[in-house]
Amino acid sequence: MSTEEIKGTNSRRTEDIDATCEEFCFNPIAVDYVQKRMLTEKESTLLTEIFKALSSKTRLHILHALSQRELCVCDLSLVLDLSVSAVSHQLRLLKAARLVKYRREGKNVYYSLDDDHVVSLFAYALEHVRHS
Amino acid sequence: MSTEEIKGTNSRRTEDIDATCEEFCFNPIAVDYVQKRMLTEKESTLLTEIFKALSSKTRLHILHALSQRELCVCDLSLVLDLSVSAVSHQLRLLKAARLVKYRREGKNVYYSLDDDHVVSLFAYALEHVRHS
Repeated sequence: MSTEEIKGTNSRRTEDIDATCEEFCFNPIAVDYVQKRMLTEKESTLLTEIFKALSSKTRLHILHALSQRELCVCDLSLVLDLSVSAVSHQLRLLKAARLVKYRREGKNVYYSLDDDHVVSLFAYALEHVRHS
Repeated sequence: MSTEEIKGTNSRRTEDIDATCEEFCFNPIAVDYVQKRMLTEKESTLLTEIFKALSSKTRLHILHALSQRELCVCDLSLVLDLSVSAVSHQLRLLKAARLVKYRREGKNVYYSLDDDHVVSLFAYALEHVRHS
């Protein structure tokens, strides 16, 4: 690698690590506008719960499976190669975060994504990682 | 509370806690369909990184602020009542998860949401908690 290439790499690294303002200077109109539209305490708590529930590979696999079709707990245990009780545990956490819902049919319980917001939220996240 | 009301409450609670199939029974077509469309290892890793980055109230406040308009690091420090260095630290984590991007203008660094996927993902999550 030439000296020039090394310099180039270093300068990009420095920029990435230290991307902050060089002197304190702010826009009072922008600050005021945003401060008047802050998340409430309840909203930020509920959002954190949702995103924590999504921060697990197993639960992401469950959501991805349910984004394709409604499945019963037994189907999900086969898809993920996990015990029914392990899947049920993860489903309870997803249900508590309002990400999935269920309906009973005979002796089976069928799960699906809670509503269209969850469908879209998951679809955009997946599109983002596929496009990045 | 009457005995009937107590029974009603208990039965709802049992249903919520134990919403699982009563006997093992699966749909092989559904299982096969979903198994052929599983998330890849890379996709589930990247999704987990995104959702972990979103599992913090401070970072959610930053994203919510940036969902309204582009802001420099100093603006964000005033909006959130945090030091510039604390805000920079959180922005680095959000940048690493590809949730925000920045541009330099003179001595200032302006941050915004990374792209339309992030805008939509955040908007749907917020709509979900507001609607729930």
